[in-house]
Amino acid sequence: MMRLRPYSRRVFYYETDKMGIVHHSNYIRWFEEARVDVIEQAGLPFETVEAEGLMVPVLSASCEYRLPFRFGDVFTVKAYIPDFGKIRFSVIYEVYDEEGNLRANGETTHCFVDMEMRPVRIKNSHQRVYDIYDELSKAGRALYDPE
Amino acid sequence: MMRLRPYSRRVFYYETDKMGIVHHSNYIRWFEEARVDVIEQAGLPFETVEAEGLMVPVLSASCEYRLPFRFGDVFTVKAYIPDFGKIRFSVIYEVYDEEGNLRANGETTHCFVDMEMRPVRIKNSHQRVYDIYDELSKAGRALYDPE
Amino acid sequence: MMRLRPYSRRVFYYETDKMGIVHHSNYIRWFEEARVDVIEQAGLPFETVEAEGLMVPVLSASCEYRLPFRFGDVFTVKAYIPDFGKIRFSVIYEVYDEEGNLRANGETTHCFVDMEMRPVRIKNSHQRVYDIYDELSKAGRALYDPE
Amino acid sequence: MMRLRPYSRRVFYYETDKMGIVHHSNYIRWFEEARVDVIEQAGLPFETVEAEGLMVPVLSASCEYRLPFRFGDVFTVKAYIPDFGKIRFSVIYEVYDEEGNLRANGETTHCFVDMEMRPVRIKNSHQRVYDIYDELSKAGRALYDPE
Repeated sequence: MMRLRPYSRRVFYYETDKMGIVHHSNYIRWFEEARVDVIEQAGLPFETVEAEGLMVPVLSASCEYRLPFRFGDVFTVKAYIPDFGKIRFSVIYEVYDEEGNLRANGETTHCFVDMEMRPVRIKNSHQRVYDIYDELSKAGRALYDPE
Repeated sequence: MMRLRPYSRRVFYYETDKMGIVHHSNYIRWFEEARVDVIEQAGLPFETVEAEGLMVPVLSASCEYRLPFRFGDVFTVKAYIPDFGKIRFSVIYEVYDEEGNLRANGETTHCFVDMEMRPVRIKNSHQRVYDIYDELSKAGRALYDPE
Repeated sequence: MMRLRPYSRRVFYYETDKMGIVHHSNYIRWFEEARVDVIEQAGLPFETVEAEGLMVPVLSASCEYRLPFRFGDVFTVKAYIPDFGKIRFSVIYEVYDEEGNLRANGETTHCFVDMEMRPVRIKNSHQRVYDIYDELSKAGRALYDPE
Repeated sequence: MMRLRPYSRRVFYYETDKMGIVHHSNYIRWFEEARVDVIEQAGLPFETVEAEGLMVPVLSASCEYRLPFRFGDVFTVKAYIPDFGKIRFSVIYEVYDEEGNLRANGETTHCFVDMEMRPVRIKNSHQRVYDIYDELSKAGRALYDPE
């Protein structure tokens, strides 16, 4: 079974707002950072997806904010694919602090399109990309369990 | 009944990404721009809220992306409060292009807190702020109907 | 002589940082907003430049911060082209508050390139684009003088 | 002599613009990331500076763009303090790609202020902070030389 490490980094100063906390729009960006990282760890660097003539636009995004992050905090994102359909798929995000508290969670949904933004059913046309997403979704949240 | 104008401006160059479209995280920022604008139009500039010792953090945010915006496009946001509870309230957003097509829509939820981030029931303590939010929620989406 | 209106808007909440002031990186973005606006006012919408196969990358940028802006402040940028050379040109920015105080100023330098990022001498190849930039640079800072 | 490691990370997707390259405003943010990192490596985490009642605003910033970065590239910043005056000081930045090419360079200037934004001569009042900055400036660019 595939095992990956969660995505983690420090909060940047410019991510804060005048309330002294991370501006809520940045979590949507953190989700993207984590999504790119998990897919690359799974063996699919972005250049490969692009070289295959595929783009993966965001169809929806949502976030629940539980406890704010502040400048200097380290956050850790566990991003996983709960299941992988024929057209759309979603990614779930859990954002933890260094003490292991869940401070935010969210979801994005996506589809595969070609360079003219037409939907692509990758199962037939892009086997390798399909296999990696499929393997990610089979692991689900267990991606981050210790072996 | 209260009548307001929708919030509108051009897309900035720096809001685009390498797909050539507005990066999805920016819609969450547009929601904030529109929310601040509608509340100010309703008679409650941010300085007033802050002078009353209140902050209005975001508890959740979500967006559905239907059709992308590109650099130079003009977007228009209709932001309204569907109803106004005792503790939490939500704001709904509809984002239109110049032809009147709905290109995105979303929602944020909020509560009122004091400067120590403790929840405040403003109905008792901040009558004027309450009245304006209440009036906004009574108008609902009809805020933007022609009189 | 060409006369234009300065670029102006309110500070957005998400542009502030935990010091309670606009984060310094945003001024570089304001410069871009003002630059796009002045060139469009001069008769050259971005789509035209792009349709001519030209891009205008930034070669350098600088800003001096005199007095900070805060959320809700209105800023006004006077952007002008002090002179227009054969290859490079620069744009000067003066950022004012509502009382007319200069709170920041800066400069960016640019060149014209084709879609493969090769420099283009537009005087010969893109007469109309050249003429508009030339006219802007002849007006210089007087663009914003009352007639 | 103090020895530090340069600051390094991958370009994020949301840092790109429709030209397909990193938007120029983000380099000013990278400078901040690197500045925070080098000062923390030198033994002065941000919390300490803040606990001492000090803020370090940016008085000016500049950047020269030589070769663009793209999504997925790794950049490395060498940030150092060329000299440390009584009131103002500057930080120099060199941004390298993975092949060791200098792709951008820049400078920011700063001063120390108290929580009311009044300038502070830290030599007398904040000896420990002064000593660390002084040591950084004595190392200069040699901070990043192999021992």
